[in-house]
Amino acid sequence: VLEVDWDAEAVELGGYEDYMLKEIHEQPAAVQRTLAGRLDAGGGIDLSESGVDLAGIQRIAVVACGTAYHAGLLGKYAIERLARLPVEVWVASEYRYAHPIGDDRTLAVAISQSGETTDTLAAVETARGFGAKVLAITNTQGSLITRESDGILLTAAGPEIAVASTKAFLTQVAVMYLLALELARVRGTLPEEELLALGRELRRIPERIQETLDLVQGRMGEAAGLYEDARSSLFLGRGVSYPVALEGALKLKEVSYIPCEGYPAGEMKHGPIALVDERCPVVAVMGRGVLREKTLSNVEETAARGARVISVAARDDADAARLSEVLLPVPELPELLGPLVASVPLQLLAYRVARDRGLDVDKPRNLAKSVTVE
Amino acid sequence: VLEVDWDAEAVELGGYEDYMLKEIHEQPAAVQRTLAGRLDAGGGIDLSESGVDLAGIQRIAVVACGTAYHAGLLGKYAIERLARLPVEVWVASEYRYAHPIGDDRTLAVAISQSGETTDTLAAVETARGFGAKVLAITNTQGSLITRESDGILLTAAGPEIAVASTKAFLTQVAVMYLLALELARVRGTLPEEELLALGRELRRIPERIQETLDLVQGRMGEAAGLYEDARSSLFLGRGVSYPVALEGALKLKEVSYIPCEGYPAGEMKHGPIALVDERCPVVAVMGRGVLREKTLSNVEETAARGARVISVAARDDADAARLSEVLLPVPELPELLGPLVASVPLQLLAYRVARDRGLDVDKPRNLAKSVTVE
Repeated sequence: VLEVDWDAEAVELGGYEDYMLKEIHEQPAAVQRTLAGRLDAGGGIDLSESGVDLAGIQRIAVVACGTAYHAGLLGKYAIERLARLPVEVWVASEYRYAHPIGDDRTLAVAISQSGETTDTLAAVETARGFGAKVLAITNTQGSLITRESDGILLTAAGPEIAVASTKAFLTQVAVMYLLALELARVRGTLPEEELLALGRELRRIPERIQETLDLVQGRMGEAAGLYEDARSSLFLGRGVSYPVALEGALKLKEVSYIPCEGYPAGEMKHGPIALVDERCPVVAVMGRGVLREKTLSNVEETAARGARVISVAARDDADAARLSEVLLPVPELPELLGPLVASVPLQLLAYRVARDRGLDVDKPRNLAKSVTVE
Repeated sequence: VLEVDWDAEAVELGGYEDYMLKEIHEQPAAVQRTLAGRLDAGGGIDLSESGVDLAGIQRIAVVACGTAYHAGLLGKYAIERLARLPVEVWVASEYRYAHPIGDDRTLAVAISQSGETTDTLAAVETARGFGAKVLAITNTQGSLITRESDGILLTAAGPEIAVASTKAFLTQVAVMYLLALELARVRGTLPEEELLALGRELRRIPERIQETLDLVQGRMGEAAGLYEDARSSLFLGRGVSYPVALEGALKLKEVSYIPCEGYPAGEMKHGPIALVDERCPVVAVMGRGVLREKTLSNVEETAARGARVISVAARDDADAARLSEVLLPVPELPELLGPLVASVPLQLLAYRVARDRGLDVDKPRNLAKSVTVE
């Protein structure tokens, strides 16, 4: 008889060494559950459950903290591009005291995994104060925020145990994209066929995330190796890849304690490039189209100053391969959807760097899972 | 006969060791020249020179890079607060490719010291594309941007030689505040007496900057000393003090090459506080009123995790003194105007840290004074 010495946590970990890694790998399923019932096979969208009448909205204010704030930034890109509706994205603790402008045609979108984030709840109260409608995007049915909102869109990430958010983030982004598609449909800002095509691409995202996990599997060790000697790091991207860079930098900060920052790649030359040397690895999220070319040229400038470059790019991107020590390949997708795959290798990078340093990735120092103080 | 061996540069430096220090000390005069003729003794404002009809404006997009972007953020606070007009502030290189929303009732405000910044010029062209009116804020008469704009407000900083901008920044902020007052007057959003009172306070800012320079003079060595062993640094502020923190971090990055980041103080606990330890000095810009108290409590959290704290606060702020190793005192001003003095000790801090490390503060590595490439 073989004796097995699993404790409850190990069973719950399902073979993974920690929750962060497990949750990163759960992302295809988490996003799939989140899209289910909201997107049909033809790409048609149904968000009627939201309970908010989107037709009269003239302005959106997204309020969120930390990782959820980055999901909000991606939502801004999608909503402004597809639905041509102005969106401002606020760090919730700032919104509360900013005397924000708005009225009853303003939609406040509050994003919080736990639904209990004190700063976000306070921002919701501020928006209510001037008559805004409130839509909550949360992972927790029955949480405080659901009681303060006119409508709710649940993410279906399942319980997230690791302090650094991964699967909750991707499901928040997926919901923001659904909201953008729905707003574009309601406002008639895009031809129906174009919306359906995007909807169909979004439906395939869970497979694309799985494909990404498989593609980068063998390369994370080499990428993390560039951090052995690192003093700091910069994460660069343009357009929709900029919030991906911000989120990548936040993950690395949270679990590895390496000082790092996300920057719009075009802004480097206006200051931060002074930081660049051989001990400051640069992570470039290439994106697609014209922004890919512009990013390449910005990253080239950092390489010329000694930076060791890791790029997240299409696997056949020869230019990115040429200027990078490590290329983390992602499937090619329509520009707007790229962040749903490009975020994944950066989660794994943060994870691997922290593990290589012998750190507790699930419970980083100084941090709490949900922040219920101001 | 006494032989004097001054070369032309030394004469031009007027006794200062480098341009950065000289230009920091020129700020009272630079701001005074910039306000002259635009604010009368009673606090009344005259910006008719701008050549743009502000009455019909419904939305403002500020486009800028680097330090000028931070002046834009401060402008957003002032304009939204005083004139209740929505303002979005964009990194110029991002705006260009963002398919931004706007029409002929949008005012694009482009801020560029040199007036030749390629990214900012491209953003202006984008705004023109949808019919926006363009107002340029620049230090350089006859520069490219003045030819692409409907109106111009010149800053009168005089030639800025050091690569890291100091006096140009404060004059840009002063002009943004003048614009906010003028918009509030035109839109009738504040009682005249309140506007005049703010105008009178703004007129006294040059003296307040001088007072700040005198106040902090003896303390910079001690503050810079906290960086002897530093691996990184965090700059914190809330509300109008947040852009001050961003600008303080940018200065330190540019001239000392220490990895650092500006953060809204309330956002710390949502991730970046993981970075905090005794080798990560925290610079806190306290501000006034309710935000001062909130900032204190956020900074207390970092101190509890071992951070050595430098605070920029009123000289009699006992709470700030208690939790700081060094307090850099600034005169008390109305909340909105605080950044015009609070920025000054942070410029001096960056300067002093870089000099202590033996670096060339006027010409930091990798950087150019005006960036005329994309």
